[in-house]
Amino acid sequence: MADVRVIDVHHGVFEMNDAVASEVRAFNETHGTFMINLMASPGAGKTTLLMETLGRLQKSHPSLKTGVMEADIDASVDAEKIASLGASVRSIQVHTGGECAMDAEMTLAAIKEFDTSSLDFLVLENVGNLVCPAETDTGATKKVVLLSVPEGDDKPLKYPLMFEVADIVLITKTDSSYYFSFDREKVVENIRLRNKNCPILFVSAKSGEGMDGWITWLERNLAR
Amino acid sequence: MADVRVIDVHHGVFEMNDAVASEVRAFNETHGTFMINLMASPGAGKTTLLMETLGRLQKSHPSLKTGVMEADIDASVDAEKIASLGASVRSIQVHTGGECAMDAEMTLAAIKEFDTSSLDFLVLENVGNLVCPAETDTGATKKVVLLSVPEGDDKPLKYPLMFEVADIVLITKTDSSYYFSFDREKVVENIRLRNKNCPILFVSAKSGEGMDGWITWLERNLAR
Repeated sequence: MADVRVIDVHHGVFEMNDAVASEVRAFNETHGTFMINLMASPGAGKTTLLMETLGRLQKSHPSLKTGVMEADIDASVDAEKIASLGASVRSIQVHTGGECAMDAEMTLAAIKEFDTSSLDFLVLENVGNLVCPAETDTGATKKVVLLSVPEGDDKPLKYPLMFEVADIVLITKTDSSYYFSFDREKVVENIRLRNKNCPILFVSAKSGEGMDGWITWLERNLAR
Repeated sequence: MADVRVIDVHHGVFEMNDAVASEVRAFNETHGTFMINLMASPGAGKTTLLMETLGRLQKSHPSLKTGVMEADIDASVDAEKIASLGASVRSIQVHTGGECAMDAEMTLAAIKEFDTSSLDFLVLENVGNLVCPAETDTGATKKVVLLSVPEGDDKPLKYPLMFEVADIVLITKTDSSYYFSFDREKVVENIRLRNKNCPILFVSAKSGEGMDGWITWLERNLAR
């Protein structure tokens, strides 16, 4: 993969992808859908945070029309969990067929099959990966990056692009902070090396820490 | 990336890669070097396990010549940690230039620059990722896959190829089991769906659980 020809092909693919991402963006704007691209390592707590978030939104905004696209290499565990939230949240499983991230074309296909035009809020839970999803624009309105406390505060140094493209970073599983040595100031410092302005919130679906701030951020974007 | 032409190019790349991986394998065999490819999510505890493992091997096998190749997108945090083990472990940092895994060509280049011919044991700590590294043979003698307790027991269902290619799976951070709901029987069951025979060990660099079994596995392979 260090071969120059291959890198050129990749560039071509990224350009094609960006054109399709614009289509996704236009579709969402036309229909007033706020779409987030949720990205993180495997096991960073994407699904758990999402379940808690949607549960809270169901209570405070009972008429909000929400959909969740679960992108996985293979398997449907997450879509089944989301489906347990009941009929007010639409759940769809997308298999990437081995690809390490959703691209805009797959997203566009899913949006059309899913018919998301009636939705206010659409969540794409991307493949668990800190590399590929950062490189591939899906056309989502905002990119939400999760980093969990057990992963360690040095990860922004090792996966810089992910933190560079983030519109907001959520540090998850903060309830386990007492157990893992995780320096909050250090992680902010490490993120700021790549991203000067994005909000950084410390959250826990388990203890509830930071959930209000995260919901407020979502509400502000949903109101736009 | 769903485009067929691109997938064909990828296949071509994989074939080229396999040829170079054979070169890496031949080089290691000629010089009697046992090389492992350490793969896991970001923050699964690769570096911590490695530090503990090398510390133990230094004590029990003081003449063992060991090297560690730290593959990262960008940054040198891990190579600096490994260097702290002292002069008996050689540490090199490899930057993949944005690629989500080490490929055989990068490995071959590193092996030659590093001149690993005198080493008994060579560890490649791959980019933290459960997708790309599974697809790319580096030419290592054995593939060691780590899954940490905080990530959850369902991950083998979601990243099947990684568990299919594993020669051994280490479930890490078992000391945190009391805190996270992680079912040991379930994770074994989920791994067995993809891999009937690989050893599965439960380990913790912190508590020491399972470290003896892991060291024994390494010793058996080093003795070959």
